[in-house]
Amino acid sequence: MTKQMRLNAFSMNCVGHQSPGLWRHPRDRSADYTSLSYWTELARTLERGKFDGIFLADVMGVYDVYGGTPDAALRNGVQVPVNDPMLLVPGMAAVTEHLGFGITGTLSFEPPFSFARRMSTLDHLTGGRVSWNIVTGYLDSAAKAMGRQRQIGHDARYDMAEEYMEVVYKLWEGSWEDDAVRRDRAAGIFTDPAKVHRVTHHGEYYDLEGIHLPEPSPQRTPVLFQAGSSAKGQAFAASHSECVFVSAPSRQIVGPAVSKLRQQVEAAGRNSSDVLVFAMMTVIVGETDEAAQRKLEDYKAYVSHEGALVLMSGWTGIDFSGCRPDEVVKHMRNDAIHSAIDRFTIADPQRAWTVGEVADFIGIGGASPIIVGSPGRVADELEAWMRETGVDGFNLTYQVMPETFVDFVDLVVPELQKRGVFKRDYAPGTLREKLFGAGPRLTSPHPAARYRRGAGRPQQKAAE
Amino acid sequence: MTKQMRLNAFSMNCVGHQSPGLWRHPRDRSADYTSLSYWTELARTLERGKFDGIFLADVMGVYDVYGGTPDAALRNGVQVPVNDPMLLVPGMAAVTEHLGFGITGTLSFEPPFSFARRMSTLDHLTGGRVSWNIVTGYLDSAAKAMGRQRQIGHDARYDMAEEYMEVVYKLWEGSWEDDAVRRDRAAGIFTDPAKVHRVTHHGEYYDLEGIHLPEPSPQRTPVLFQAGSSAKGQAFAASHSECVFVSAPSRQIVGPAVSKLRQQVEAAGRNSSDVLVFAMMTVIVGETDEAAQRKLEDYKAYVSHEGALVLMSGWTGIDFSGCRPDEVVKHMRNDAIHSAIDRFTIADPQRAWTVGEVADFIGIGGASPIIVGSPGRVADELEAWMRETGVDGFNLTYQVMPETFVDFVDLVVPELQKRGVFKRDYAPGTLREKLFGAGPRLTSPHPAARYRRGAGRPQQKAAE
Repeated sequence: MTKQMRLNAFSMNCVGHQSPGLWRHPRDRSADYTSLSYWTELARTLERGKFDGIFLADVMGVYDVYGGTPDAALRNGVQVPVNDPMLLVPGMAAVTEHLGFGITGTLSFEPPFSFARRMSTLDHLTGGRVSWNIVTGYLDSAAKAMGRQRQIGHDARYDMAEEYMEVVYKLWEGSWEDDAVRRDRAAGIFTDPAKVHRVTHHGEYYDLEGIHLPEPSPQRTPVLFQAGSSAKGQAFAASHSECVFVSAPSRQIVGPAVSKLRQQVEAAGRNSSDVLVFAMMTVIVGETDEAAQRKLEDYKAYVSHEGALVLMSGWTGIDFSGCRPDEVVKHMRNDAIHSAIDRFTIADPQRAWTVGEVADFIGIGGASPIIVGSPGRVADELEAWMRETGVDGFNLTYQVMPETFVDFVDLVVPELQKRGVFKRDYAPGTLREKLFGAGPRLTSPHPAARYRRGAGRPQQKAAE
Repeated sequence: MTKQMRLNAFSMNCVGHQSPGLWRHPRDRSADYTSLSYWTELARTLERGKFDGIFLADVMGVYDVYGGTPDAALRNGVQVPVNDPMLLVPGMAAVTEHLGFGITGTLSFEPPFSFARRMSTLDHLTGGRVSWNIVTGYLDSAAKAMGRQRQIGHDARYDMAEEYMEVVYKLWEGSWEDDAVRRDRAAGIFTDPAKVHRVTHHGEYYDLEGIHLPEPSPQRTPVLFQAGSSAKGQAFAASHSECVFVSAPSRQIVGPAVSKLRQQVEAAGRNSSDVLVFAMMTVIVGETDEAAQRKLEDYKAYVSHEGALVLMSGWTGIDFSGCRPDEVVKHMRNDAIHSAIDRFTIADPQRAWTVGEVADFIGIGGASPIIVGSPGRVADELEAWMRETGVDGFNLTYQVMPETFVDFVDLVVPELQKRGVFKRDYAPGTLREKLFGAGPRLTSPHPAARYRRGAGRPQQKAAE
């Protein structure tokens, strides 16, 4: 069978997301992000298009590198105001049956005991449709908001993350055996206490004693998603992640990154196909190539340059507020800016980009690659991306909400289905089963399986 | 106009709640608490009956005083397993329009910055229908689960709570002015940065710097609910609470407690009618008194004595596992047990209660008063309760889910409406407006109003 393409809608509980300024477009509804119906309608559209999931980004702070204040972010609505992502899920779950829900959870700000309970609750309420995008946090403003002077150092964050995973695995996998809950009315036994185990953890960063409060949810550990691109981040992904999110503007970067990741996954003792890789992607589709091109030009007219530079400044730590739009980047005397800009413009490294052009590019899809064209052209390009880079699918940004996703569902999905590269219907079961054809629980050699006890424990670990 | 009765359904995200053992009743569905449809159906029933809200209790630990282990709690399904309450709300909000949602949030376990964002998110998604039941935490097992040796002392908890309220008021009321968000597509201004203020708090227990991440929600501060019965707890309620939850088995206790609370509210500079008092109440209704009595006898057959004593042990800190069911409490040589039992049996202090009888009583409605009878008798009793104690309404426990609430909606609500003591339709607006006929924001002299800035700031505080 042809390899099946995986698709997530990439969104965030805020106005706009990766397309600063586009909230001003007359057809854009993203300024209604505070209403529940905005999300339930989106969820219905995505399920109609057989999307695997909606992937919800999050930040716990504001973009305040640009000009040294959050003013430009606020003015342009650049990922602020921003609401909690987790609370969107039960509302969307109430109107769908299969759609998956990827939730970004910044572990430095979530005590593991209560976070683990929240994820288990969601996994119950959705019938096993949740995944967790593990983020260790990257905005200084977020750290300050939580009472720290600045972010914990990058490497220490990954040490904390390793320990955090150990704690939540103990809770999700180790506290309740599979057959602990009996619901036996006749015998009067709801739970067999002998099969519920107290988790004891006294580590360097976390201390905890107690049972996991929820009973085992369909997936126990949610599907684990991660997006780290540093060496530490990749090593973490190789051992823990089931899905990896890569974002870079060109195949030349993504291809080698995917190969390297798959090698690391194998080196970690796992099968490289145990990990699905999703590339960030922007698709602007029309009935014809020309119609799509006109749509792009229309969208471009609403990009906020300032908003785009706010994002760039936040991502790179470099304040772009002093740059003139017509400045040619390669003529600027600032190595940090050169290397930062290179990360985003490598799609066409020969070109003498101006700051304004970079902002234009970023403003359309957050520095993701952009595919513009008819359904046939878009399908060709997406297939080529999968073939040439080894990715399994895409996290699709939006420009105009919900138009971007409605267009994709109405125009691209049927084309992909016709080609046999995208499902005509959902597979049964939990998100893990839908994505991997196996599950609903993680199995050895994934590290989570090591913590399981009793009947649910993998055979090969019985001697431990 | 006759004083209108307020009604909340009292529930919890677990199997059973205040009626240990009743999950075994053939008609009880509470063992399905993990499914979203269980909650959306309940929400629809309550809205059909014009209930003001559903009030969701929570514990972050297990009842492990009985026998010194959580085994009996687990076996009997006594408030364990237990899932997160907050995540039920968006699902129920998606299928209702007016029902309020009371969420128990244990502040010792919720960092204020992320908790405030969660509540604001819920207030947005529900269109201003949330209230927060402020709990400072009471189970040692919960403290241990979060890595502490034991609960912080009772008085220190209230000092922390005062500071916590200051922090969340600053976030909810002080960070964004009412007219900060403009959504002005033509001018390209989403938010006016001059009207968004950084919250700086460096206190004894909390440190925080940053803006509140969400824009102002309909109510800003959710309706504040509280249930503290200690001196410190009552003082806290007098200054902060808009709704107070009292639980005691008889009018003789509740009446004086309500008077005292109202005096304290006045002493805190507020109007005593600014606070609504809800009494915990159990109602077993049938078409006739005899039918209701038969229903009670049927329910009693399913009470778990052990489960009831697990609750008692948790509430009082006394291990009842050594007591024989036929022991007469007043003959027992243990003053602590006497005084603990007195709290629950004062409904009939002359009676020589056995331990088993106490368990029976607690097993039906968690030591709340129990009204049994025809719709007319139930309405008479509820009206008498309001008249004689000064309470404004009730938090109704359930015995068999959802039967208890379906019965109440079908039989008692029409009787109350006929008598003109219960609304035939919801008032418009947010939960605060529905409950108080004013709002949607808190106003002076409530302490929250002190933190508001700009246009939304109360006039009388402009000079500060």
